[in-house]
Amino acid sequence: MDFSTSELESAHALLPDAIKNTPLVSGRTPGLTLKLETLQPTGSYKIRAAWTALVRLGEPARVKGVALSSSGNFAGAFTWAAKRLGVPAHLVFTPSVSGLKVQMAEEFPCQIHRCEDRYEARYEVLEHLAESGILTIDHRLDQNVHLGHATIGWECAEHLERFERVLVPVSTGGLAIGMATALRARGFRGEIWGVQPSGNDTAARSFRAGRPIQNRGAATCCDALTATSLPQAAFDELKRLLSGILVVNEATIPEAVKYLALSEGVIAEPGAAVGMAALLENQKRPDGTLLILSGRNIEPALLRDYLT
Amino acid sequence: MDFSTSELESAHALLPDAIKNTPLVSGRTPGLTLKLETLQPTGSYKIRAAWTALVRLGEPARVKGVALSSSGNFAGAFTWAAKRLGVPAHLVFTPSVSGLKVQMAEEFPCQIHRCEDRYEARYEVLEHLAESGILTIDHRLDQNVHLGHATIGWECAEHLERFERVLVPVSTGGLAIGMATALRARGFRGEIWGVQPSGNDTAARSFRAGRPIQNRGAATCCDALTATSLPQAAFDELKRLLSGILVVNEATIPEAVKYLALSEGVIAEPGAAVGMAALLENQKRPDGTLLILSGRNIEPALLRDYLT
Repeated sequence: MDFSTSELESAHALLPDAIKNTPLVSGRTPGLTLKLETLQPTGSYKIRAAWTALVRLGEPARVKGVALSSSGNFAGAFTWAAKRLGVPAHLVFTPSVSGLKVQMAEEFPCQIHRCEDRYEARYEVLEHLAESGILTIDHRLDQNVHLGHATIGWECAEHLERFERVLVPVSTGGLAIGMATALRARGFRGEIWGVQPSGNDTAARSFRAGRPIQNRGAATCCDALTATSLPQAAFDELKRLLSGILVVNEATIPEAVKYLALSEGVIAEPGAAVGMAALLENQKRPDGTLLILSGRNIEPALLRDYLT
Repeated sequence: MDFSTSELESAHALLPDAIKNTPLVSGRTPGLTLKLETLQPTGSYKIRAAWTALVRLGEPARVKGVALSSSGNFAGAFTWAAKRLGVPAHLVFTPSVSGLKVQMAEEFPCQIHRCEDRYEARYEVLEHLAESGILTIDHRLDQNVHLGHATIGWECAEHLERFERVLVPVSTGGLAIGMATALRARGFRGEIWGVQPSGNDTAARSFRAGRPIQNRGAATCCDALTATSLPQAAFDELKRLLSGILVVNEATIPEAVKYLALSEGVIAEPGAAVGMAALLENQKRPDGTLLILSGRNIEPALLRDYLT
């Protein structure tokens, strides 16, 4: 991953107004800055990558259609962008996907394919679809997807004076890689920490092992952070770009969702709240910290529980 | 109320960065724009007025102190600003004030005075404090308070192309008056509607009566919209500036809080959600509408109930 500033700038310029320039706000917590991807039209940052990938398609893909696998947030973003750009959308879901997120994806025309309940099964179904001539996007490796994620870092870099440390959720690491690439390209010299839940700390374990590991028995309340393996390329990029990976206790994540709602007025889903959880665990100081709040799509019943 | 553009501009310039330029965001609901005063450090727009009133004080008031009565949101804002500006703060509360809001006010040094459980009793205690040499602010009439509120309209007016209609909560009408004054001063020609809950529609009834009425037996879930009478000056200004006042059913307000949380990712308190309630009741169309979301300070237990 090595985008030039002109590539980054043009990716940002291609985003519609409805997607770009989400608020960067000062929290009530002194010195804390929040990037509110929670306010995106489909409730998560994935809409930037979906748009960036689909807006650059050639004519054949626009006719045959495009397929993607998603734990949920990318799906809603993908159908939102596909509808506006007139591209037939195929989605591959595992059985464990959040009903709320399937519902968001189904708001727009799309064809849904179910796969077995294994993280890797998603990519097997994608290969199958590719054989029938559909363009498939592997969001873990796709350059345009990373470029879409990078637009978040591009925007944050307009305000480098406001933070010296960034905390960003990590699953396959796409958000962290894209964001860090853009921040570094624009001269950010501070720390960038990935954050994972203890129930699925695949990237943290891979860091310790010095190579991508396969994580068996992962179980986390963060339905957006479900990757149990990392492509080698993503592992290498994360190693190069991040200061390290913080792991937060599953039990702190509901506290972080509650804190963000009641003290900051922001609805964040569990996977978006892991950075706040790291602050609540005193792993880093809020002062000078930028939290990337990646999405808001939490099941209402779960949110009620967490507010208790 | 007739502020010049230079008065408005300088009031805006006097606000600290932590207060000014709250996000103006496109909602998930097509065509809807939201002004997020919910993201203010003390969780409500009142912080602008508190700052504007206190930053202009002369030396005697800075020593003797300043007193204010509030249903809650102004109190937290007042102590926040008083602490930073080194002014002794006195607060007058009715017994029915939200515990959460008292707690927010008490985060900073202040002296609390309780009054009887009548809206007007607040102003009687203020008069008593004034006799002991403390400067009292009647937030219903104070020019600097209105000027503080006006800074919201000043900011919204940077984006006149995004809306043709504004919905703003009304209690004593200060927010509506200040905001409308600034919007009109900067050339906004669209509609500005006040919104009140059916449980306390004092301004709407006054409009119908053609004069300020005394509203007996008011009871609303909006603890920020408790004014049961209007000063004549406020009534006259509201008549001059507003297109009219919409009244929403109490039962719709929890729905509006829920909608803002789950569909827009924004925590809003009941009094801030009345505009959204008017849209849910189809009183106005979302497309082209700007909602002023005035605050987020809702009791956690109430928020949980509303999310059910």
